[in-house]
Amino acid sequence: MSFAQSIQLNWFDETRAGFETALAEKLNQSKGPSSELNAAIEYALLDGGKRLRAMLVFAAGHAVETPASELSDAACAIEAMHAYSLVHDDLPSMDNDVLRRGKPTCHVKFGEAFALLAGDALQTLAFQWLAESEQGNVQVRIQQIAALAGASGLQGMAAGQAIDLAHVGKPMDLQSLANMHARKTGDLISASVRMGYVSNTALSAVEKNGLEAYAHCLGLAYQVIDDILDVESTSEVLGKTSGKDALNNKPTMVSLMGLGEAKALLARLREQAFTACEVIAAPRRAPLETLVELITNRKS
Amino acid sequence: MSFAQSIQLNWFDETRAGFETALAEKLNQSKGPSSELNAAIEYALLDGGKRLRAMLVFAAGHAVETPASELSDAACAIEAMHAYSLVHDDLPSMDNDVLRRGKPTCHVKFGEAFALLAGDALQTLAFQWLAESEQGNVQVRIQQIAALAGASGLQGMAAGQAIDLAHVGKPMDLQSLANMHARKTGDLISASVRMGYVSNTALSAVEKNGLEAYAHCLGLAYQVIDDILDVESTSEVLGKTSGKDALNNKPTMVSLMGLGEAKALLARLREQAFTACEVIAAPRRAPLETLVELITNRKS
Repeated sequence: MSFAQSIQLNWFDETRAGFETALAEKLNQSKGPSSELNAAIEYALLDGGKRLRAMLVFAAGHAVETPASELSDAACAIEAMHAYSLVHDDLPSMDNDVLRRGKPTCHVKFGEAFALLAGDALQTLAFQWLAESEQGNVQVRIQQIAALAGASGLQGMAAGQAIDLAHVGKPMDLQSLANMHARKTGDLISASVRMGYVSNTALSAVEKNGLEAYAHCLGLAYQVIDDILDVESTSEVLGKTSGKDALNNKPTMVSLMGLGEAKALLARLREQAFTACEVIAAPRRAPLETLVELITNRKS
Repeated sequence: MSFAQSIQLNWFDETRAGFETALAEKLNQSKGPSSELNAAIEYALLDGGKRLRAMLVFAAGHAVETPASELSDAACAIEAMHAYSLVHDDLPSMDNDVLRRGKPTCHVKFGEAFALLAGDALQTLAFQWLAESEQGNVQVRIQQIAALAGASGLQGMAAGQAIDLAHVGKPMDLQSLANMHARKTGDLISASVRMGYVSNTALSAVEKNGLEAYAHCLGLAYQVIDDILDVESTSEVLGKTSGKDALNNKPTMVSLMGLGEAKALLARLREQAFTACEVIAAPRRAPLETLVELITNRKS
């Protein structure tokens, strides 16, 4: 391992550890009068997940010279939004899944009604944390809120989920599948990068476009590797039910392209992500590169 | 009817009609690629409801000399948030209700999964509309977002709902019941008033406190009349299932205080609301007074 790489891993591990502390603290301060709801939210939000979205906020911030201490509220917000989406996706009326991050899903543990409310309140919390934040200026925060909302609603994550639902048991071509994934997963990944870089209001169009392209490639790569792992991995390693797509006869990048082609696409997206972030000077883009490595090499 | 009263009713009806048009237009511009999700949201948000929360935004704005044209996005946002809460409350895992605003509930019409997603996306839309709004300045909008989020999450509406859930089949004293209602219903009513008056950044503390007290009384009155109507009215008039609380053996203001005491409380809250808004000059407070009348005299 080179010295530069070890510094990078240091930045990464330290930032992630700092983030976990900040998130737990923030949640603790936000708790309300319902102990059941507090517990369900804590269960869904803490002690789990790779925090890739939070780390993308910090990495994009690092790229534009904004310290992590100025972005932790935005990072907490995106993880709350992501956690809400997982809790609701796992509900019986949706994916009806019982395993998440190696633990029983939220509704298995707390019942369906509290899981529904926990997801609802996690979404609210994401916006509340941004609105009440003292980090950045108000202009930056309103842009972060707009990025988060735009990626999550009728044009983004919820729409992707709805398209997925509407296609259960129906055929889907590769382009429609990629479009659905872009909304379901890619948009929130892009929002993470955007919530980081908007903190620098003096960013050039070239840098901005490069970071957007980076996020786009990474979002698509994320889903391709997800589909590959669903075929090649086990529930134990994944911490969630594996092989489910094939079982449900759901189209995936792998089922439509074949495993070899899917792996080749992943390799191309990986290179494109590296190239895209070259608009940022070398030392500042290192965390973005680490995230490409982590996402494209992930085993769970 | 006095001339002043007829002008007031004019303002009210015209503002509400203008709001319905603005809301329909805004939703139309926000539609995404899932026709099912678009349809479920349209069903839940348009053509129904008394728009009391939207009208409270406008009335509080009128009180502080902000025209309705500067507050329509905030009014749309609060109605989207309210609609989300109704869709999720009606779900089988929550109140399991089949009738709302005189129509089948969203999940009866579109299925549980789309109703879940529609509620999720309506909440997102509320924040998106505020974040992307061109009304007011950014400082005002971030305060509106904070008011809306604060009233809806772990300290507000979601907590009230969770406390309600946790008490099914258990006794509850009057104070706990009032506290639960304050969160479940009152907080969003207070947020409506706040989202209106924060548009005037030069508001005095006296005016602000008066408007907060007004909102507090109105929120409580809203629930008291709800509980009275649940006993005295029919499903046909209400547009939702009547007599449900008694059937489910749920404590209400009426079951804990008796009908006579509940009506006396309502009368007191009505007077307190009128008194509280006297901090605002007479012509400017007229819409707030109209709303007290409408809420305390409502039959559905």
